[in-house]
Amino acid sequence: MSRLVLKFGGTSVGDVDRIRNVAAKVKAVADAGNEVAVVVSAMAGTTDQLVGLVRDIDPRGDLREYDVVVSAGEQISVGLLAIALQSLGCRARSWLGWQLPVRCDSAHGAARILGIDADAVVTAMANGDIAVVPGFQGVSPDGRVTTLGRGGSDTSAVALAAAVGADRCDIYTDVDGVYTCDPRIVTRARKLDRITYEEMLEMASQGAKVLQTRSVVMALKHRVPIQVLSSFADVPGTLVVDEEDIVEDETISGIAYAPGEAKITLVRVADRPGVAASIFGPLANAGVNVDMIVQNVSEDGKSTDVTFTVGRDDVARALKVIEGVRDEIEYERVQADPDVVKISVIGVGMRSHAGVAHTMFRALAEKGINIQTITTSEIKISVLIAEDYKELALRTLHTAYGLDA
Amino acid sequence: MSRLVLKFGGTSVGDVDRIRNVAAKVKAVADAGNEVAVVVSAMAGTTDQLVGLVRDIDPRGDLREYDVVVSAGEQISVGLLAIALQSLGCRARSWLGWQLPVRCDSAHGAARILGIDADAVVTAMANGDIAVVPGFQGVSPDGRVTTLGRGGSDTSAVALAAAVGADRCDIYTDVDGVYTCDPRIVTRARKLDRITYEEMLEMASQGAKVLQTRSVVMALKHRVPIQVLSSFADVPGTLVVDEEDIVEDETISGIAYAPGEAKITLVRVADRPGVAASIFGPLANAGVNVDMIVQNVSEDGKSTDVTFTVGRDDVARALKVIEGVRDEIEYERVQADPDVVKISVIGVGMRSHAGVAHTMFRALAEKGINIQTITTSEIKISVLIAEDYKELALRTLHTAYGLDA
Repeated sequence: MSRLVLKFGGTSVGDVDRIRNVAAKVKAVADAGNEVAVVVSAMAGTTDQLVGLVRDIDPRGDLREYDVVVSAGEQISVGLLAIALQSLGCRARSWLGWQLPVRCDSAHGAARILGIDADAVVTAMANGDIAVVPGFQGVSPDGRVTTLGRGGSDTSAVALAAAVGADRCDIYTDVDGVYTCDPRIVTRARKLDRITYEEMLEMASQGAKVLQTRSVVMALKHRVPIQVLSSFADVPGTLVVDEEDIVEDETISGIAYAPGEAKITLVRVADRPGVAASIFGPLANAGVNVDMIVQNVSEDGKSTDVTFTVGRDDVARALKVIEGVRDEIEYERVQADPDVVKISVIGVGMRSHAGVAHTMFRALAEKGINIQTITTSEIKISVLIAEDYKELALRTLHTAYGLDA
Repeated sequence: MSRLVLKFGGTSVGDVDRIRNVAAKVKAVADAGNEVAVVVSAMAGTTDQLVGLVRDIDPRGDLREYDVVVSAGEQISVGLLAIALQSLGCRARSWLGWQLPVRCDSAHGAARILGIDADAVVTAMANGDIAVVPGFQGVSPDGRVTTLGRGGSDTSAVALAAAVGADRCDIYTDVDGVYTCDPRIVTRARKLDRITYEEMLEMASQGAKVLQTRSVVMALKHRVPIQVLSSFADVPGTLVVDEEDIVEDETISGIAYAPGEAKITLVRVADRPGVAASIFGPLANAGVNVDMIVQNVSEDGKSTDVTFTVGRDDVARALKVIEGVRDEIEYERVQADPDVVKISVIGVGMRSHAGVAHTMFRALAEKGINIQTITTSEIKISVLIAEDYKELALRTLHTAYGLDA
């Protein structure tokens, strides 16, 4: 017997039949003798529709009221799922974010969960009842409705799993697990049985949208094992676990890509202390999210080039900010290139294996793919290449690291 | 300067443009120097859609979860209206039913308001802020979401007006006031400037669906003046007030009809004590709503006829109940007639005017309309006639009582 938190996304509860399907899945897990709580998202399309209504009235509308409106989606789905479970003979009830409560900070529209008072849920679960809890929503310290930002329901589920001391958090989604690479591009991609939190985190932040990054951070922090599996197929998914729980020791677990990025290079920036702060401080203040940052050593001791990536939608804003601090930074010129893609190879195994980088660079070189910039972390090597080569690069690397099915 | 509660129904907030229109109306009232709170219904169609989802999953679904689902409609509209008000430069915020709270009993799906803790709203209003509160929803003693039943938003508005000590509760709707008769049938119907609570109560329960009956009961109990007026036209509406506030002393204020009723007659029922209880107790237990009840004196001292009306949808159920207690009641036979309509003339003035009934009976007789049964109250005379004569009867009586415009 395990204590489990099951999470179902918007597609999984997209209509009445799918809600019934979810109820049947939940019942099967409960009937197998497990203690069960369920976290659900809004029915697919509902949140977009609610966000659209707010935007139609005022795109800069009060985020506190925005939260009141958009949290209604999850309120609807928890009630419907509770009824669907009851109609299958389960004892089930819903708790809304304010009822537990799910305590959040006051960052409306993108709140962080501070903690969940889960006594009621634990009591219900221990009693054999199925607790149904909305993802995405919570309540601020001053008692107002908050939401966690888009995709926040994964985080809600992991936070609830941590709060009730669950043995595992099962995230049901429209894919059946985490793959070595995007199967739409690399047809020989394999589903992973297990992956570490750290690898999953890199995969998630590199564009593999299976789990929300924040939910992985929370799972890592509270050591909550996650399983990613399909709502529609009845097969085991991928376990996201601690490194010591990984049996096979593959060097590289997966290859990810981050689309939609653009490269900006400041050519011949004065090479003196504080210049990086002068560049990235104003960008942060302007709300421009910077991903990769590359700065090489200065050749002449006087100037260097600084390259960074931002979301393509942010290029114009970033250039304006850079223009505004020209006097301070004293760069020669600025170049922007929106046609780039970041490719990353990820694996905890690379720490103990030499030659991982070499394999990457050689494989890309053999296909004539030029590497524009390189950054590395403990468990990741990322390169920026021209976007035209995205598919070729992914397939080439997938084969080079022996990941093909 | 007055303290006002304004209420807008689902049609008035049916889309984004209409929500903007409501915001402009509310702003105008506030700009005129009034303290303002607003109560809103769900956007037209939303509640039906949510009720439909619940029914699709399980028509007998848990009413506590039903309330969670259907209350989402008002949650959406309060947030949107608050944003619309803010975008016009007003200071506005929403409070949900659980936030004030609006304290209700536990009769989920048809809860009664026990009281509203309106301190926060009073403080906001006194501060020049516009409080936006959802109709229809509240919270039970054990902290679960409740709803008041369909059309409950009028009651929410009057209850809030009572709680904040409002000078008036303005109910904005899709008609511009209360008419002497249904203007779709009687083209010469006039809008009333004023009507008493008691008359409005009779009008409402007789099918004039301008205000929900419960809201009028609550207004009468707390002596909250109501104004019924149009969301779309900018003209004064009808005031619902105490009798002493009525200036003109018309005998008859209006003529109402109750469609959708059916007549059931128990022929030759044993005339002995307790028989009425034996008939109507089981009907009430079966959830059959009985409206009119007529029993005449027994001619022979042994048996009498009992006639009552029920909703047409309830006829089959009512007959089954009556069949089940046949041994106890000892009636000869039972007759059902679904083709009837109840016509009522209503007016506090009839207490002091003789001849009101005579005018009614003579006017109908002159048109050859047969009266099947008659019941009277202090301020109302109702007759049951064949439904074919509905329009003719209404127009005839409207003229007979001098109500034509």
